Amino acid sequence: MEIKNKSITSRDVDFAQWYTDVCKKADLMDYYTTKGFIVYRPYGYAIWENIKEYVDKEFKATGHENVYMPLVIPESLFNKEKEHIEGFAPETLIATIGGANELQDRLIIRPTSECVFTEHYSHIINSYRDLPKKYNQWCSVVRWEKTTRPFLRGSEFLWQEGHTMHSSEVEAKEETLKMLEIYDQLGKDILAIPFVKGRKTEKEKFAGALETYTVEALMHDGKALQSGTTHYFGQGFAKAFNVQYLDKDGKIKNPYQTSFGISTRLIGALIMVHGDDNGLVLPPFVAPIQVVIIPIQMAKEGVLKKCREVFELLKNAGIRVKLDDGDKTPGWKFSEYEVKGVPLRIEIGPRDLTNNVATIVKRYDGSKETISLDKMVEEVKRLLVSIHEEMYQKALKNLLANIKEVHSYDELKEVVNKGGYAKMMWCGDEACENKIKEDTNATSRCLPFDQTAFDDTCPVCGKKAKYVIYFAKSY
Amino acid sequence: MEIKNKSITSRDVDFAQWYTDVCKKADLMDYYTTKGFIVYRPYGYAIWENIKEYVDKEFKATGHENVYMPLVIPESLFNKEKEHIEGFAPETLIATIGGANELQDRLIIRPTSECVFTEHYSHIINSYRDLPKKYNQWCSVVRWEKTTRPFLRGSEFLWQEGHTMHSSEVEAKEETLKMLEIYDQLGKDILAIPFVKGRKTEKEKFAGALETYTVEALMHDGKALQSGTTHYFGQGFAKAFNVQYLDKDGKIKNPYQTSFGISTRLIGALIMVHGDDNGLVLPPFVAPIQVVIIPIQMAKEGVLKKCREVFELLKNAGIRVKLDDGDKTPGWKFSEYEVKGVPLRIEIGPRDLTNNVATIVKRYDGSKETISLDKMVEEVKRLLVSIHEEMYQKALKNLLANIKEVHSYDELKEVVNKGGYAKMMWCGDEACENKIKEDTNATSRCLPFDQTAFDDTCPVCGKKAKYVIYFAKSY
Repeated sequence: MEIKNKSITSRDVDFAQWYTDVCKKADLMDYYTTKGFIVYRPYGYAIWENIKEYVDKEFKATGHENVYMPLVIPESLFNKEKEHIEGFAPETLIATIGGANELQDRLIIRPTSECVFTEHYSHIINSYRDLPKKYNQWCSVVRWEKTTRPFLRGSEFLWQEGHTMHSSEVEAKEETLKMLEIYDQLGKDILAIPFVKGRKTEKEKFAGALETYTVEALMHDGKALQSGTTHYFGQGFAKAFNVQYLDKDGKIKNPYQTSFGISTRLIGALIMVHGDDNGLVLPPFVAPIQVVIIPIQMAKEGVLKKCREVFELLKNAGIRVKLDDGDKTPGWKFSEYEVKGVPLRIEIGPRDLTNNVATIVKRYDGSKETISLDKMVEEVKRLLVSIHEEMYQKALKNLLANIKEVHSYDELKEVVNKGGYAKMMWCGDEACENKIKEDTNATSRCLPFDQTAFDDTCPVCGKKAKYVIYFAKSY
Repeated sequence: MEIKNKSITSRDVDFAQWYTDVCKKADLMDYYTTKGFIVYRPYGYAIWENIKEYVDKEFKATGHENVYMPLVIPESLFNKEKEHIEGFAPETLIATIGGANELQDRLIIRPTSECVFTEHYSHIINSYRDLPKKYNQWCSVVRWEKTTRPFLRGSEFLWQEGHTMHSSEVEAKEETLKMLEIYDQLGKDILAIPFVKGRKTEKEKFAGALETYTVEALMHDGKALQSGTTHYFGQGFAKAFNVQYLDKDGKIKNPYQTSFGISTRLIGALIMVHGDDNGLVLPPFVAPIQVVIIPIQMAKEGVLKKCREVFELLKNAGIRVKLDDGDKTPGWKFSEYEVKGVPLRIEIGPRDLTNNVATIVKRYDGSKETISLDKMVEEVKRLLVSIHEEMYQKALKNLLANIKEVHSYDELKEVVNKGGYAKMMWCGDEACENKIKEDTNATSRCLPFDQTAFDDTCPVCGKKAKYVIYFAKSY
């Protein structure tokens, strides 16, 4: 961009402060009186609505049904699955008073709803005919976090949680991979974010799950961000909650379970993958405003009229367009929509009217084009597609450049300290994960699906290597 | 319908039991371990999604923006508006433990979010340029109720809450009436429910509001159901929360506030306005499944193939259609979709193939038509529109037949005890409202917008009458 926005800290000076500045200056959120809780302002919430719309459609197309489950989980219910409760107990918010009376069974404000879905499934699954059951809900969850940052880690965040039940292990495991595929596709299609995909280690998997799969994004500062997870539970919850059905063969069986979720964390990913020193840079298909029209010398005859014509034209073509005819200067407006990361800015002034053109500026790289007003709709559509593609390719290039094979422990330390993924051969022993975390603060991100070995030994302990694994520092 | 569904109590035998039976048998909801909380099952939730889609579009078209606000309200914040807290305090759920520690400032799980929105507005409203602010959120709220019934009164329910700030009293009051108009139109356009509209009395208005407006529906048993409300707050909250802006004239002012909401109660209204002894009867434009196709003698050649063709045809025409090719008998399926209130059932059997026709049955009145397969899409579309219109007219006729002008206290008692609205001239004294409630359990529903007087005195106290008012028993 032409001029550095001075209200935003430079990324390279202080990345954390830059992040906070962008969250605030782009009007994505506001702080609240209770620490860790935030207000999702219209511009931030609209990004989430676009993500939701994409994912909801994919879920419905693959036979998932939306439901809404109770917000509260009685402690007695939560305690039924031991590993699960142990994972969540330290960070729960607990209600103890209802209608001015002390509650007998204290109520946990849902941190996740495995217990609630499984309890309901125990009422409605009776026959093989009732399977599979594939439910999803859009809601908020509460986790009492000590250190919080907008979108990345909050005491309350918005998410979807899918919970499914299947008649076979194979089908349930397939479900976890299919849902991971939807998350990956979400990245490709609208977030312009490429992910590293794979399975979590025993140490890093979800509380109560047998297997956890993840999509991980790489932020500008070289840290990873877990962006979506899917879990295979086997029959653990089903047995604990007594979910049983009569199979075709006349036998009583327990079904196999999965869950999966993405959250408003993805807004944090969008900020840190694409943003620059002038603020947010949004990929076109997730942007609440795709095009902003700014009149130049608005008082001159015909300018505002032409701006309104172009606005109507684009709006009717299904483009999310805004005309800013407010009383601020064009320069003020340029900066405003730059901070907000609006992909395209159209400037129309008196000289453009004479030539029947408009100037169009891409937020992504600051480049300008002069476009005939007669071809506005096609050109804007073309640009939205090409910007998305360029942003995805740029992010992919950055991701690939920051995955480095390491062959020694020193190399590993160097890579994770500098930022990016260290791709390592691992013995499979949790002790090595723990040592790396202690020494570098990096954690294992996943065992990628491509397990082509490139070394014989684990560089941490020197024992025989079994897995390809990614380590990185993370949010 | 042909045969009475025996799993559902007759409406005239036990209306309350009939209601519960329909909620359960139509798979709208399930009970939960914590009393008063329910599971919104896919079929029930899909009705809410359709309502939401309609209303959300209307809100956006009138310049409202969606946000998401924190779930918790610190007691210190809630206590800032005295009348408001007094109205809600007895039914709050309060969290006292977070992350295993006792909370200093206890957290109320939101029963409504006036405080939360106003607190946020105090951060973002500074200039006349920032007004109006018209925000809305879709969420759940918690009210610790003693007596609960699915959809009608629950400890947690889904709703939308709009909260707006305006620079003038006139504009704010207009907003409350415009939003009431959207609710009224929702009834006309997709719920097929006519409402009585008007203003609530001082006694019945919302805690902290200066004026409350309401749309009220009439249930089959003659009771009223408050179905949507809009509130004008004046500057009360704005002053308590210190929301101030610099106006064009250089003076510091407080804005004028409104809020408005509808909830999953509307599902209860749909059940009790349209349902019959065989279950739910859904108006077409809110129905999750508008048409169900049931193959007759499914094993016979060509039957299933033709059913699938018709399914694709209707689906591609944008109709919400389901083909039930499951292994149950046609009779079982008829009953299943009757209970669920699916507006149209299409039966296709071997004989129909020969004649290139299908039998189409309307859930609403049980009438049948034979329709050419070539004209299926037009005919289904025509029927959906005409069923909606007939259902609305039937409900309107019932409503009008059950509004009775009363001229004496005995007449009033007779009308409200029998069921329906007693339209009365009222002195305006709360003592008369209280007396009516004590004697009959009926409450004032609203002062209708048409205030054409028809008597000189209030039949309760004999004093000079000032207002036209409706009384009825209600949910």
